[in-house]
Amino acid sequence: MRVAGVSSASRSGDRGPQVAVVGGGVVGWAIAWRCAVRGLSVTVHDPAPGSGASTVAAGMLAPVAEASFGETALTGLLVASAARWPAFAAELTAASGTDLGYRTEGTLIVGLTGDDLTEVRRLGAYQQGLGLPVTLLRPSGLRDREPALAPRVRGGAFAAGDHQVDPRRLLPALRTAAERAGAALVTEPVGRLGDLTAPAVVVAAGCGTAALTGLPVRPVKGQILRLRAPGGGPPGFRHVVRGYADGEPVYVVPRSDGEVVVGATVEERADPTVTAGAVLRLLRAAVGLLPELAEYDLVETTAGFRPGTPDNAPVIGVLPGRPGVLVAAGHHRHGIVLAPVTADLVADLLVTGIPDALLAPFAPDRFDPPVGSVTGP
Amino acid sequence: MRVAGVSSASRSGDRGPQVAVVGGGVVGWAIAWRCAVRGLSVTVHDPAPGSGASTVAAGMLAPVAEASFGETALTGLLVASAARWPAFAAELTAASGTDLGYRTEGTLIVGLTGDDLTEVRRLGAYQQGLGLPVTLLRPSGLRDREPALAPRVRGGAFAAGDHQVDPRRLLPALRTAAERAGAALVTEPVGRLGDLTAPAVVVAAGCGTAALTGLPVRPVKGQILRLRAPGGGPPGFRHVVRGYADGEPVYVVPRSDGEVVVGATVEERADPTVTAGAVLRLLRAAVGLLPELAEYDLVETTAGFRPGTPDNAPVIGVLPGRPGVLVAAGHHRHGIVLAPVTADLVADLLVTGIPDALLAPFAPDRFDPPVGSVTGP
Repeated sequence: MRVAGVSSASRSGDRGPQVAVVGGGVVGWAIAWRCAVRGLSVTVHDPAPGSGASTVAAGMLAPVAEASFGETALTGLLVASAARWPAFAAELTAASGTDLGYRTEGTLIVGLTGDDLTEVRRLGAYQQGLGLPVTLLRPSGLRDREPALAPRVRGGAFAAGDHQVDPRRLLPALRTAAERAGAALVTEPVGRLGDLTAPAVVVAAGCGTAALTGLPVRPVKGQILRLRAPGGGPPGFRHVVRGYADGEPVYVVPRSDGEVVVGATVEERADPTVTAGAVLRLLRAAVGLLPELAEYDLVETTAGFRPGTPDNAPVIGVLPGRPGVLVAAGHHRHGIVLAPVTADLVADLLVTGIPDALLAPFAPDRFDPPVGSVTGP
Repeated sequence: MRVAGVSSASRSGDRGPQVAVVGGGVVGWAIAWRCAVRGLSVTVHDPAPGSGASTVAAGMLAPVAEASFGETALTGLLVASAARWPAFAAELTAASGTDLGYRTEGTLIVGLTGDDLTEVRRLGAYQQGLGLPVTLLRPSGLRDREPALAPRVRGGAFAAGDHQVDPRRLLPALRTAAERAGAALVTEPVGRLGDLTAPAVVVAAGCGTAALTGLPVRPVKGQILRLRAPGGGPPGFRHVVRGYADGEPVYVVPRSDGEVVVGATVEERADPTVTAGAVLRLLRAAVGLLPELAEYDLVETTAGFRPGTPDNAPVIGVLPGRPGVLVAAGHHRHGIVLAPVTADLVADLLVTGIPDALLAPFAPDRFDPPVGSVTGP
């Protein structure tokens, strides 16, 4: 499992970069930053940095609200990464001089109808069973916390530790921090990994990872809306609100600058269109939970693609049969929350050659048939 | 009521233009075209032709479906103008070499629920009472005509003579025809009517008419959506569909090129924002009537401003106290359908000096207090 060519001993005196990161999204720049601050020389290869899932994402740091049945290993990684977020955000804010829009009010998980509430409680019981910090609330308790919720909302829960960050602030902050630490952007496209001369390569190419590595990373379409509070002020609510409205799952993320993100569909489609039906479902659910959103400006409708894997979990580790190639991709809906743990553990692996035990469930060799042979040098 | 300076006798030999049309929207260019083909020399004054209501409009030519209680004079003008549309469209198509997207399948007027159907029938009885050609249909008859209608639709009516045109084709066609007939565009803004030296001035400035004339023309906000059928083909339905869906009025206009227009709100507001609530209401109503629209791309959300008047009817005629100044404005929701009658009767008035009897209810002097004095020469 040692990574060829980036031992501590060889870290100085090389002429070329020691680490080439393929992909200039949040995961790629986070890895580049963490590697650069450890003294590695790093290049980031992307002809259009930030053009993937990173700048479409809502930015919820929500391991509790995202804990789904049967994904306990993933939940563990989400919790571990969310725990790193406060320090990561503080360090990144200092290193980049950028306000990340990091907010800690927590997340309300709500149900509009009786059936919706049943679903919230079922998931809440599962989350509590995992030991996650989630508190069930009556409607009165919900509205004490968030008066903007619709009177119809039947109940819900509070996840105090589920925070948020603005990915459109995060991405340039990571790039600034990485570049200040010495990382350099290369905009020439990478057609094959064999074209890269660095002793260590990290593929953080999101949906582009499949073509470079043969790993089963596929695009999962998401449609997402951006609203803006009228009059230029902040939104009239402070918490991230997730929930079900007449069976429709939705999340609503308020930002201090007035932006409100409403998302997101999860579609096994690769077409880039924004559809009337998706916009209708998202708006109906969001306005159902927070009626004041009807008066907000609809400023953006976007379709993006998450890098999905067969088990919905990321792929982090050495590519089978390619000791010089690490992969950090397939983060699906969790790229923002997982950025700190991914970046730190990849940097550790590059420096020590030993993968952290946390990464064991996410190794690239878990997929069958074996992969890694489509683009040899 | 004679219009100063544009008698037949003076039509040749002048050096400057005989008619200055202020406003390069559909009404302005239609007037310019009709004047130019009668041998008048015409300038059209607009720093941004087509930037007003014309290119936001859906383009329904729907005097029957638009016949509302208490607006019988307006209905008469709508019917008269719609009757001119076939010949007007044929002549314009020939003169401009442009396909106008003119379609004659007719309009279905439908109600989704029992209450909606009651409203459709109430309006249908009124329209029949005016002698307008509208046929009530059972659900089976509706679906025979338009299988794409939702199974829930309770019933409706058919207005065979309510056609449609594409305003985004109409506007450049009118400009081309007018310019080919000798009209010329002047892009210098017109601050005051007194700055114009032509012996006859026609103010067709839409919402800008108030500032130029003092007439009570106000902006009436409309939000409208443009969808596109998936796969690049035409929409899966042929008729214009108007109706009520759970009390929400909506219209849906299919174009041969795949575009579908869904409109429109009517709001006494002057802010230019597209709101989440308006998009939600329009999509919910449209998808309720035509479920396949959920799979269509949402390609445009727009807010525009119709030039409204106190009685919802246009202002066409000589400005009181200003014999050289005609007004053709305030067409509100009816600018496209009223373009032929407005253009023809304004051109007649300019040539003969005598207003057609059809125009009597729409004279500018019907408003109190008297207007016309805000921008003297």
